[in-house]
Amino acid sequence: MATVIEVTEVDDPRVDDFRDLATADRRPDRPGGRGLVIAEGVVVVERLLASPYPVRSLLGVRRRLDALAEPLAAVDVPAHVAEADVMARVVGFHLNRGVLAVADRAPVPDLDVLLARSKRVAVLEGIGDHENLGSLFRNAAALGVDAILLGPGSSDPLYRRSVRVSMGHVLRVPFAPVESMSAVFEALTAHGYRTAALTPRPNAVPLREAELDDDKVAVLLGSEGPGLTEEALAGADTTVRIPMADGVDSLNVATSAAVAFHAMNGAA
Amino acid sequence: MATVIEVTEVDDPRVDDFRDLATADRRPDRPGGRGLVIAEGVVVVERLLASPYPVRSLLGVRRRLDALAEPLAAVDVPAHVAEADVMARVVGFHLNRGVLAVADRAPVPDLDVLLARSKRVAVLEGIGDHENLGSLFRNAAALGVDAILLGPGSSDPLYRRSVRVSMGHVLRVPFAPVESMSAVFEALTAHGYRTAALTPRPNAVPLREAELDDDKVAVLLGSEGPGLTEEALAGADTTVRIPMADGVDSLNVATSAAVAFHAMNGAA
Repeated sequence: MATVIEVTEVDDPRVDDFRDLATADRRPDRPGGRGLVIAEGVVVVERLLASPYPVRSLLGVRRRLDALAEPLAAVDVPAHVAEADVMARVVGFHLNRGVLAVADRAPVPDLDVLLARSKRVAVLEGIGDHENLGSLFRNAAALGVDAILLGPGSSDPLYRRSVRVSMGHVLRVPFAPVESMSAVFEALTAHGYRTAALTPRPNAVPLREAELDDDKVAVLLGSEGPGLTEEALAGADTTVRIPMADGVDSLNVATSAAVAFHAMNGAA
Repeated sequence: MATVIEVTEVDDPRVDDFRDLATADRRPDRPGGRGLVIAEGVVVVERLLASPYPVRSLLGVRRRLDALAEPLAAVDVPAHVAEADVMARVVGFHLNRGVLAVADRAPVPDLDVLLARSKRVAVLEGIGDHENLGSLFRNAAALGVDAILLGPGSSDPLYRRSVRVSMGHVLRVPFAPVESMSAVFEALTAHGYRTAALTPRPNAVPLREAELDDDKVAVLLGSEGPGLTEEALAGADTTVRIPMADGVDSLNVATSAAVAFHAMNGAA
């Protein structure tokens, strides 16, 4: 059962985890950045409480904490309740949806364990944009992707903006960083995955003909501008493309990913 | 050939079309709103110049107008060149990507003509969000949708934000407003379209089994919250769903649309 603690002073040290989030959590690698996992709003806080991430505490207005009464009954964390203006002055921005929760990072899952228990995997190479990354996780969660491998050049999905854009689904889909594409291919091959690289190149197989509903399949996704590296394209078992009209740049990477995830969601 | 006109004074009446765009174009139905079509940035301006919308004039910094030299050689419009600070003070916002173009609205295409020459159609019901609308048009353009019908409750795709988010593709995909869903069904039936309503309801046919690659097919899309109305669901030949994992709210409407557009893009 969560312990409710009234907070009336802006400088109360018990809510230091939530202080100046607008600047502090943007770059957890910078001075003042804490690298905590931050959930904003009732829905995302609920997902954080249901996730493997160890929740440290909550800060919210009465009404929002009341909406979380049921999940809070099941956890032993401090839930700080404050008036809206006190909360806004602690946090340093107003768009906090009335309730925030912070958690520590959890250990990264072991790659072999993750690949052994998964069937459908997405591999991201060079996805640096936090919004795209968040949307990608949302789409992965909706469309039955079991795990995400973060290849070289991909950002941290636990940044606040990614958590928010994903509607908390970065907390649901397990992910593991992998340091090189050769390590990605080695692990996927060892676990019997077929690999398909998504690319706009005209010689790739149209997605509808690619039959991605194998028992174990991994789709490789690159960033919108440069796309996948030669190494990723050459290493994959097959290259697939989403047929597009002439003169259209391309789809957003999270949108392309959704189309591919649906195509490999054979069991659904 | 465009006529280049140097503008050095912020109050030059020749650039009145571009004045205070941040407020004026947001609500073309309000006082000060002009209802013009506004393109921002080289790529979108290029698409506007290639569109059926009659371009009135351009305003840009030298470097951006130079990048448009080729398409500007083919049109007879005034191209106003200004220093960046003069331009910013005319327009009233800085995020203008260095070049803007304004056009008049074009007459709405005749519904019968539009449906006769199209094969793949999207029908939007209650899509009010301008960003979703812009993304939907971008996805429609990329994935070979020939026309969009704007059913009740859908916003104007020519608002500045929709134009921008669509990367100019609202200027490429023809659309027509239709006042009621009964008028939508009447027109689609008269032109031999099979209609498929996208819904999360569990009794709908999974998209992969729906075989939307008929010669003439229309997919109906509702907004993320309430979804399609009963009238739309009941009137369609079939209801289809994108299979989703338990506990995930839903995909963004433009993302769902992309998955459906890909499924009906049989000729690609």
